[in-house]
Amino acid sequence: MEKYIDDLCDLKEEVYETFRRRPDLLPPIIEDLTKEQHRELVRKCLLAILEAGYSPLRFYTGNIKKYFYLGELLALVDLSLTVKMGVQYSLWGGSVLSLGTERHRKAYFDDIDKFRLPGCFAMTELRHGSNVAALQTEAVLDVATDEWVINTPDEGATKWWIGNGAEDGQAASVFARLKVPSPDGSGALDDHGVHAFVVPLRDAGGRALPGVEIKDCGYKIALQGVDNASFRFHDVRVPRENLLDRFATVDRSGQYRSPYSASRRFAATLGELTGGRVGLTCSSLAVLKGATTIAVRYGAARQQFGPPDAPEISVLDYTSQQEKLMPMLATAYALHFTTRFLVAQYAEAKRTKEEEIIADVHSLSAGLKAYATGYTANALSICRECCGGHGYAAVNRFGAWRSDHDIFQTFEGDNTVLLQQVAGLLLKKYKERFATAPVAATYRYLRQWAADSLPANPLVTHETDARHLRDPAFLIRALRYRTGKLLFTVAQRLRKHTARLGAFHAWNKCLTHLLALARAHVESVMFERFMDAVNGCPDPECRKSLKAMADVFALQRIHADVLFRNDDYVAAEKAKAIGRLLEHLWRELREVALPLVDAWNLPDHILRAPIGLSTHSMHPYQSYLRAGGWES
Amino acid sequence: MEKYIDDLCDLKEEVYETFRRRPDLLPPIIEDLTKEQHRELVRKCLLAILEAGYSPLRFYTGNIKKYFYLGELLALVDLSLTVKMGVQYSLWGGSVLSLGTERHRKAYFDDIDKFRLPGCFAMTELRHGSNVAALQTEAVLDVATDEWVINTPDEGATKWWIGNGAEDGQAASVFARLKVPSPDGSGALDDHGVHAFVVPLRDAGGRALPGVEIKDCGYKIALQGVDNASFRFHDVRVPRENLLDRFATVDRSGQYRSPYSASRRFAATLGELTGGRVGLTCSSLAVLKGATTIAVRYGAARQQFGPPDAPEISVLDYTSQQEKLMPMLATAYALHFTTRFLVAQYAEAKRTKEEEIIADVHSLSAGLKAYATGYTANALSICRECCGGHGYAAVNRFGAWRSDHDIFQTFEGDNTVLLQQVAGLLLKKYKERFATAPVAATYRYLRQWAADSLPANPLVTHETDARHLRDPAFLIRALRYRTGKLLFTVAQRLRKHTARLGAFHAWNKCLTHLLALARAHVESVMFERFMDAVNGCPDPECRKSLKAMADVFALQRIHADVLFRNDDYVAAEKAKAIGRLLEHLWRELREVALPLVDAWNLPDHILRAPIGLSTHSMHPYQSYLRAGGWES
Repeated sequence: MEKYIDDLCDLKEEVYETFRRRPDLLPPIIEDLTKEQHRELVRKCLLAILEAGYSPLRFYTGNIKKYFYLGELLALVDLSLTVKMGVQYSLWGGSVLSLGTERHRKAYFDDIDKFRLPGCFAMTELRHGSNVAALQTEAVLDVATDEWVINTPDEGATKWWIGNGAEDGQAASVFARLKVPSPDGSGALDDHGVHAFVVPLRDAGGRALPGVEIKDCGYKIALQGVDNASFRFHDVRVPRENLLDRFATVDRSGQYRSPYSASRRFAATLGELTGGRVGLTCSSLAVLKGATTIAVRYGAARQQFGPPDAPEISVLDYTSQQEKLMPMLATAYALHFTTRFLVAQYAEAKRTKEEEIIADVHSLSAGLKAYATGYTANALSICRECCGGHGYAAVNRFGAWRSDHDIFQTFEGDNTVLLQQVAGLLLKKYKERFATAPVAATYRYLRQWAADSLPANPLVTHETDARHLRDPAFLIRALRYRTGKLLFTVAQRLRKHTARLGAFHAWNKCLTHLLALARAHVESVMFERFMDAVNGCPDPECRKSLKAMADVFALQRIHADVLFRNDDYVAAEKAKAIGRLLEHLWRELREVALPLVDAWNLPDHILRAPIGLSTHSMHPYQSYLRAGGWES
Repeated sequence: MEKYIDDLCDLKEEVYETFRRRPDLLPPIIEDLTKEQHRELVRKCLLAILEAGYSPLRFYTGNIKKYFYLGELLALVDLSLTVKMGVQYSLWGGSVLSLGTERHRKAYFDDIDKFRLPGCFAMTELRHGSNVAALQTEAVLDVATDEWVINTPDEGATKWWIGNGAEDGQAASVFARLKVPSPDGSGALDDHGVHAFVVPLRDAGGRALPGVEIKDCGYKIALQGVDNASFRFHDVRVPRENLLDRFATVDRSGQYRSPYSASRRFAATLGELTGGRVGLTCSSLAVLKGATTIAVRYGAARQQFGPPDAPEISVLDYTSQQEKLMPMLATAYALHFTTRFLVAQYAEAKRTKEEEIIADVHSLSAGLKAYATGYTANALSICRECCGGHGYAAVNRFGAWRSDHDIFQTFEGDNTVLLQQVAGLLLKKYKERFATAPVAATYRYLRQWAADSLPANPLVTHETDARHLRDPAFLIRALRYRTGKLLFTVAQRLRKHTARLGAFHAWNKCLTHLLALARAHVESVMFERFMDAVNGCPDPECRKSLKAMADVFALQRIHADVLFRNDDYVAAEKAKAIGRLLEHLWRELREVALPLVDAWNLPDHILRAPIGLSTHSMHPYQSYLRAGGWES
């Protein structure tokens, strides 16, 4: 873990140094740009990064850790920039490389890498986002000319929200239903479902090609630096070779071949796109660190009220402020360690291509993307509120971050849908192990699994002393117990309801339960990765603080989840003891909160918020007064 | 309740008709304005409202219900407009009228009403917001010239965030420490604490007057249509009469007189400003209704996934979507009825000047402002997420609302501070009743109060049938039990800790407990007002839906609060039964969700979001495609 960070330290120095020398590349934080101005700035900034010698697509294929870390670093510069790069490299580049074959790589790699061929990932349609299998755009093979004919059959199939589309995109990976003449010679078309095709969009002069209709999606809540568009295709013809044909091929005669079943092929196609989720998780984490840094520094410096005839106290000394910010600090660290783990696993999956690791990465990337982005979205509002009126000044960045980051909860997989994938994978895993056993055995296993996680001694339920409550064995067991219990009971409920309602409606009936299961699983994983970091920390002072944060992370979840009480896994007096212990740990963390955010080492010229700079505790308000037009 | 609504129906028709005729007064939702453009638009809009014959300051003094309803109506037009009007009428006008005397009314009323004298409420300083008593700006009487000399003693005392200040404000109520020569003739100054003074800021040409330094606060997260500024005063002289002297006077000789103690005078001064909180609650409610309407309509029309070989289903049919939106619908109705009650109580307090009602309004306005604005802020994010990618289009309004509304949680009383006031007033009320009794008696009373709220029969703890769970007697008792229990226990804890730590630190130690008490109290009040509405509803179908929403409101809170489990007020099986009942009620409400939002009757030309119009269920995406530049 530490080694990984060391390797990339230089990258951080270098990249942030670029912006120290070129402050003109940073988006203004004291005024709003028009969407055209912001898009221009993002383009300029992206080109400057390329000119500085970074090669994102090469990182993407050859050094994925570096690729993700670059995304994390740039997130604090401008989220529009990160998203624009994500579109160009993870989505457009990623789809060409992962879904295509060697000839696509050869044809496009360099031009994509150098942004000479800006491109799009044209999947989402007006009526279909999450349900990718139901996309309506069509690619019909014309055997006579050996071309695909791309069409938008109705207005609901208009491609929508396509990044890089409104201004820059010269081509796109278009997701469309692949249709070829039926081999039975009837003249009917066989629909093989959704595949990706490279489709040119604009000529060198930037004009839309014949048959391609493009509209700017206009102002979004934010991320104005990304040029999103909607498209319609009218008899657009592209060569047969433009099918990205790693998972299925079509030959000159129009014969369709795939080594996979339709459902496995679909899963493999979408599976190649998990990298985007890892990237979003990294960017989201960066924003969470930035916001927490500002709120903690401001909270330590801001003083308001106090005992009679005594100086005012820091707002961070109020329990109410600690309740908001200390669990956030702990969660940011938990996400930090878990994200590092995910990135390492992702690299490992790419390297080894081991099925087990790939499945793990699929599940964790979905779960962590949903958890991190949902948590950060909420945390940004809390941080703003913790900084009061001054938090509402545009220069202090919470507003732009919240508005930019908001859509991270939806794109590259709606969080509610992703969490269902996590739940589905958990259920699958446990069923698979017992595929050959009779049903009863499966359930016996699950029951056993839940029972294993029970406290060894029933007295433990009532144990309230801090040493026990902070014992990693107790915390890990408790979190695992919750996951096991939710998994066991939801499997039972699904079985019962499926018989009566069918799988789809049974799933819907259990949906809140399934989402709870997914979140519980992610939190278990996060705590275990956090404990790895605690155990691996050589410095005793530092380990103490990490341990306190890990405990806050776990205890907070145990305290808030009524499941533990309903199952009497935690007795009432134990729940109350946990509440008291949490307040005690917040106070302990408050004393080290400044060094804990300083440890993230976000440079002032990148963080920029006048109330959150590293110098703020020494000279509170100095930079802020200056930003407000006052000499100081 | 209904009568009140009827009285004001005409106002709604009229006001919204104004904007049907003058769409140029509506802020654009497809692009961003610069702050200068937005301020100009808001000014134009305010003047149009005045020209249409509305007289906000007359409403404020003579028909307060109309005043607040106007604010609620305009909130959906443009929150900048509502806030600008709040500054001009509730704050600037309100402070002159409520803190001043007849001669101030005569001098300023008409000019304020007609916006010929735009003014500011200059309370907040850079270093002090919530802690008003610690403001540092000074007003020193110069007996020789019979003038106040206003000064900003240091940079921390710079007035900050002053609305109407950057462009329009010609005068301000400046809150400053009143200092007069000590009557002992020593030449020393006596500091009588914070008072308000009318201070001219600009000449007729808009230039800052000598000694007044003004800087534009610049871009905020949003609300760009409000021109906030920071001020410094350098020996600015105003006549002695400019002291707003309802609660304290200073005569020609410099002698200070007040019928109140310093603390009562301070409380009376701030007490006059509760109207602003009522207004914010109304505006916040309007936004919550708007957002819920859009999310429910979109959710009903949007279809995604479905059973195999069957049409896709509405996203509103997913339990996960119902879990988010049905409690929100219920809470919006709860806030609707409680806000109407608050407005009526406020009017009653103004009319009767009865101490008991004034105290109630003080507590409820603080609690409801905090609750409503906190709830709405979070709901806006949930609604955006429920509308997926299309929710992120600027035209669908969630982003601007969230950014504009965000600061409602902070201004006119930080929510965390306001909730503490509620807790403090609850504690005061219970202590007062037993002021003369020995301490033990006080606590016996509290204990009794908590015991009264226990279920009569211990078996009730385990009762799980729906009739019982939906019995208003159970629900009201449970919510009251919680408030009583929290009050009783926090009083005990405060007593214990005060002995050791002093009042200030004891309070801080109990802060999360006190905040829970305040929220519990507000929720009790909301549910009881909701049940009044249910009982008063003449239509059986309508009453059934209102009752279902009231039940969801109460059961959701009982289900989520571990206090009920920890006290074994609700047994485990009962908690689970409540969870199941909630899912059942969400499904029931989903069937009537469209008519329930339609009942708010927000006209399409005001709501404007293409995915949330009243026609959306018949023609989904039609308006939205048009907004996206497509013929449809």
